[in-house]
Amino acid sequence: MEERKRVSELGIKIGRFPTGLNNAITDIPGVKVGHETVITDIQEGQGPARTGVTVILPNEDIYNQRIFANSHVINGAGEMTGMVQMKEWGIIETPIALTNSMNVGIVSDGIIEYMTQRYPELGETEDIVLPIVAECDDSFLNNPRGRHVKQEHVLSAIRKATSGKVEEGSVGSGTGMSCFEFKGGIGTSSRVILDQYTIGTLVMTNFGKRRDFLLNGASVGEQLLEYMPKSHVPEGSIIIVIGTNAPLLPHQLGRLAKRAALGLGKVGSKAYHGSGEISLAFSTGNHLKRGEDSEVLNLIMLNDQFLNDLFEAAIDCVEESILNAIFKAKTVSGRNGNTLYEIPIAKIMKTFATR
Amino acid sequence: MEERKRVSELGIKIGRFPTGLNNAITDIPGVKVGHETVITDIQEGQGPARTGVTVILPNEDIYNQRIFANSHVINGAGEMTGMVQMKEWGIIETPIALTNSMNVGIVSDGIIEYMTQRYPELGETEDIVLPIVAECDDSFLNNPRGRHVKQEHVLSAIRKATSGKVEEGSVGSGTGMSCFEFKGGIGTSSRVILDQYTIGTLVMTNFGKRRDFLLNGASVGEQLLEYMPKSHVPEGSIIIVIGTNAPLLPHQLGRLAKRAALGLGKVGSKAYHGSGEISLAFSTGNHLKRGEDSEVLNLIMLNDQFLNDLFEAAIDCVEESILNAIFKAKTVSGRNGNTLYEIPIAKIMKTFATR
Amino acid sequence: MEERKRVSELGIKIGRFPTGLNNAITDIPGVKVGHETVITDIQEGQGPARTGVTVILPNEDIYNQRIFANSHVINGAGEMTGMVQMKEWGIIETPIALTNSMNVGIVSDGIIEYMTQRYPELGETEDIVLPIVAECDDSFLNNPRGRHVKQEHVLSAIRKATSGKVEEGSVGSGTGMSCFEFKGGIGTSSRVILDQYTIGTLVMTNFGKRRDFLLNGASVGEQLLEYMPKSHVPEGSIIIVIGTNAPLLPHQLGRLAKRAALGLGKVGSKAYHGSGEISLAFSTGNHLKRGEDSEVLNLIMLNDQFLNDLFEAAIDCVEESILNAIFKAKTVSGRNGNTLYEIPIAKIMKTFATR
Amino acid sequence: MEERKRVSELGIKIGRFPTGLNNAITDIPGVKVGHETVITDIQEGQGPARTGVTVILPNEDIYNQRIFANSHVINGAGEMTGMVQMKEWGIIETPIALTNSMNVGIVSDGIIEYMTQRYPELGETEDIVLPIVAECDDSFLNNPRGRHVKQEHVLSAIRKATSGKVEEGSVGSGTGMSCFEFKGGIGTSSRVILDQYTIGTLVMTNFGKRRDFLLNGASVGEQLLEYMPKSHVPEGSIIIVIGTNAPLLPHQLGRLAKRAALGLGKVGSKAYHGSGEISLAFSTGNHLKRGEDSEVLNLIMLNDQFLNDLFEAAIDCVEESILNAIFKAKTVSGRNGNTLYEIPIAKIMKTFATR
Repeated sequence: MEERKRVSELGIKIGRFPTGLNNAITDIPGVKVGHETVITDIQEGQGPARTGVTVILPNEDIYNQRIFANSHVINGAGEMTGMVQMKEWGIIETPIALTNSMNVGIVSDGIIEYMTQRYPELGETEDIVLPIVAECDDSFLNNPRGRHVKQEHVLSAIRKATSGKVEEGSVGSGTGMSCFEFKGGIGTSSRVILDQYTIGTLVMTNFGKRRDFLLNGASVGEQLLEYMPKSHVPEGSIIIVIGTNAPLLPHQLGRLAKRAALGLGKVGSKAYHGSGEISLAFSTGNHLKRGEDSEVLNLIMLNDQFLNDLFEAAIDCVEESILNAIFKAKTVSGRNGNTLYEIPIAKIMKTFATR
Repeated sequence: MEERKRVSELGIKIGRFPTGLNNAITDIPGVKVGHETVITDIQEGQGPARTGVTVILPNEDIYNQRIFANSHVINGAGEMTGMVQMKEWGIIETPIALTNSMNVGIVSDGIIEYMTQRYPELGETEDIVLPIVAECDDSFLNNPRGRHVKQEHVLSAIRKATSGKVEEGSVGSGTGMSCFEFKGGIGTSSRVILDQYTIGTLVMTNFGKRRDFLLNGASVGEQLLEYMPKSHVPEGSIIIVIGTNAPLLPHQLGRLAKRAALGLGKVGSKAYHGSGEISLAFSTGNHLKRGEDSEVLNLIMLNDQFLNDLFEAAIDCVEESILNAIFKAKTVSGRNGNTLYEIPIAKIMKTFATR
Repeated sequence: MEERKRVSELGIKIGRFPTGLNNAITDIPGVKVGHETVITDIQEGQGPARTGVTVILPNEDIYNQRIFANSHVINGAGEMTGMVQMKEWGIIETPIALTNSMNVGIVSDGIIEYMTQRYPELGETEDIVLPIVAECDDSFLNNPRGRHVKQEHVLSAIRKATSGKVEEGSVGSGTGMSCFEFKGGIGTSSRVILDQYTIGTLVMTNFGKRRDFLLNGASVGEQLLEYMPKSHVPEGSIIIVIGTNAPLLPHQLGRLAKRAALGLGKVGSKAYHGSGEISLAFSTGNHLKRGEDSEVLNLIMLNDQFLNDLFEAAIDCVEESILNAIFKAKTVSGRNGNTLYEIPIAKIMKTFATR
Repeated sequence: MEERKRVSELGIKIGRFPTGLNNAITDIPGVKVGHETVITDIQEGQGPARTGVTVILPNEDIYNQRIFANSHVINGAGEMTGMVQMKEWGIIETPIALTNSMNVGIVSDGIIEYMTQRYPELGETEDIVLPIVAECDDSFLNNPRGRHVKQEHVLSAIRKATSGKVEEGSVGSGTGMSCFEFKGGIGTSSRVILDQYTIGTLVMTNFGKRRDFLLNGASVGEQLLEYMPKSHVPEGSIIIVIGTNAPLLPHQLGRLAKRAALGLGKVGSKAYHGSGEISLAFSTGNHLKRGEDSEVLNLIMLNDQFLNDLFEAAIDCVEESILNAIFKAKTVSGRNGNTLYEIPIAKIMKTFATR
């Protein structure tokens, strides 16, 4: 089997900014990522599981150290629970979880379980919380009717969450996901900007037709038609999480979230009718402490005049994260004998070099 | 115990339009409502249950006969799952469920369970669905940590759903809810407009400070301070569902959903910071058949010039539904010995008459 | 002729907060308002002018001391230019002008003229600006085809702008405007909250059917049908400007702007199909200095936990501003012999007292 | 001087769909485009004019035959007047005009002048209208303080509007505009989809840094640094108008308008902080006749299942329109001796071929 490499390891450089240490969303100080992969074969009447859950913890104690966030819907044939409150208050106060479409309810309840276990005051003396759970539909490989991701998988993904390197490809919520009719899944990337801030993205890919695929601008998809799945792959989706420690206010984060569309355009997304293309942007640059009773809070805000590098780096990270999801994913077979093939790296790099 | 009456039975007439047969959202042909009330006493470590689930079925087969819908957020300290897709596609394709805040995940999974049982093709040959579940926080009376509403309660509420009269007050998802620091819960109302269309609303109330309460414009709340709960009631929320058989397109339904704010203003809502005030509007006037393969669909649309009566009737129905929720609700005691008192009807009507 | 009084002078108290010194938007330190009224009789082929322009200057030098702002559209059958940039950047950098619908272009150019005269660097070494101009349709009394408000009227209104008392009723852009089929126009109000902040509103009213009118909750409109205009008044609009010196961020100002709908509901607005009901909220609590080159700015933000009084006071101010616009306006006759009658104060107060 | 060619004439094929007859927005039956170019040298105190106005007429009588429309803001550092009403009603009822930023007011008034001349009933027995005017900032070449585009230029552009070929590059409102620090301006393109519908776009470009420029995915901008302007070009903007005769409803048109971001991403846009990147989408597939008094209107709607080709073609057209604006534009010198250079076609094609 061919070794899976990230695109930067293959000499593909996206954009002009340096990457963070691990070229991952976890390069933002305090951010952790955890995966729980769920693969089982026959469950009676529910078919195989090729799915999982991935969690992003923006900091150690997001419930008490709330941070600013915002989101953008490029094409809304999808779900991100908790978005209404996030947009109203401009903050998040729970982990962010990614999973398959019909598992959103159980995963949301899993986040609640985690929160109630950790915070005995939650729902007692403190207000309830509304979890952020986003999804793509992995039903080409996974039987979604089984809702195979259970509460314990959510708890486990949170326990396992670490900083440092992030596993990519067919892992966690990316286990059964596609990209341009190749195997896809989880990808991440980061950049350092303005000499001091880190911006990173983590994506769960599940979108695109083969012919649309652009590799750093090159239309290589059309030349790889032999690795096509045997039957029709649903239109899919992509969830894009953008984090930064640059101190952005909620309205600035909404703008940052919108840049996801420009990165998507660069890899060839058409944001098809059935695709849930949704982005979320958060900043760890300010904390809003729960229970703070000062009438006026002191904040910092990145001067708008310095946003451009952040916008550009976000576009670069989105593009590179998607490519990493594709390049790191290994072939997976699942429901109904369906297979999503890994991208043939050697072959595509040859095509890319000689185009 | 004082008999609970709807405000129309007390001679309070809201607005100038005639009501439908039952003065309920179920006056819209095909619309059904079902409640499942969940009341238990001690569950170890989880305290009492004073909660439930209420479902609205816009038609007999919403999965296959999808209808146009849209929503509006007045204050988004709340949740309505499925909103992203509803706003993108302009349709709904699942029942609408209401419940308590920390039960959203399980109730969402309950809707999925119902859908997968009824539609074996769902998630097999047909796409997944994303349920619509909205919430208020009943934790003044109910222990939200218990997530007492289970899958079977959702299935039961759907089975029980009927047209005709709708039970109001402390029932279904309204069991533990408040309104202006009185007991509140579920309320409904309807109007007939343009001699042929019905518009109806169903609300789940859980908002407001006593001093804010306006009864048909009269500031009676300040005169009823003796029926106050003994401890602080959270800021709460309100979910407002507006249905009509007038043929509105999605953008018209977004406009209709916005009128909820005007009705809320009339009863004295301030849309407090912590209140999730969210409306959803649907129209049964066009169906979008699943699997329809015609390239072009024929639709009907209410001429914009005729929207005003619909807007006005929506405001009236929202106001009357809220009042019905309050007037029909009976006193409930629950968690931590808390009690929400029913509004004293005889007393308030006397105040109202002599103000 | 009956003396025109503000509703507070008539003993009508809206809400529970104290008013500012002049019960006007100008109670916010630094805020100025200027009117230029344009009344002419025959202009050949263009009929009479019953119109004008009103400007709000949030501070002495808004171009260089930019402030946070946001807006909300309740019903968008109207115009507020500059909204796109205001929502994107979260700031305003020009005066706010109000005028009649078909005069928006010329008034916008008048603001440009003022800005280029005052700031020689504008459009030379500094970027262009996009003015904020909002409108209602005064064509019942005024011939809109004449575009009677010229550049010089805009310049004059800005020159005349002062702090202190604000002229209300049939003045400036309110000259030809209606309210509930009475004469309406400009109204203002303010409140002091949290012992230190001022919130104020200024409205230009032009909306409502007589039967809808609620005076502090009382349905008095139906009893005043004899003062009806002789022919059909267009559906009209309302522009609502909310200012405060409480330090709100753009997303908080968006929330504040949404409260306008609740105040509108209380006076009986249905937000008719043809009505442009648009609000704008600004805060003078932070300044964003033009040309500031620090990478990070220090800001203050009102803790969300303290927003409720601001929300409630905004609703009160909107309601009282609308009432002031009606109560202060005097009868005006104009185009096609149309007349809008002033509200008969003595009569309505008697009705109000004995209802 | 090198002959200016459209990219299709140079063998660059964007996407997989056939173009319309003229590869222009005017391939949509009934759509006309008109330009008025304004070039003058010294106007005392106001410097040179390198500007103009471009109008798009969606049909012969848009005031009476209103059509569905919607818009999307990618980055809102810009203006499109009339957007509030367009989004509320889902229709447009005036021509669409493009011009320079500080000329928006006068051009808006010019549209009013055209409308009042053509429709004597407008503002008399019929309601007022709110024009759609969008802008980019051409102040690198043009003195914006001069507001050189006058009412008569608007009237002239409308008179000159024709179907058939559309002049591109440095013409009309594109006269002073840039693109990736080359000379840019007006570009257009079209596609035929589903064997029967036409989709076309017209853009006014004024955005981008040289290094960002992607030619059909190839990063050629970095290799053309010798044609750079001598001083700093403002961040600029782009206005994107998308038309189709496919019968889309307003919410579908909002979705179509969002695809502009994906096409922008493909040419390398970062949607910089100071860039007004705004799209408008209209459909001529249904007409909403003014004065129609039927209570219910019959409409047609493209089945959502067929939207994908439309989305993809929109992205292709946006990309090709931008390239056409660049490739057709000729070098222009103007204010302060500034020059924007035309792209060197022979050189870039050589680079493109051998990359």
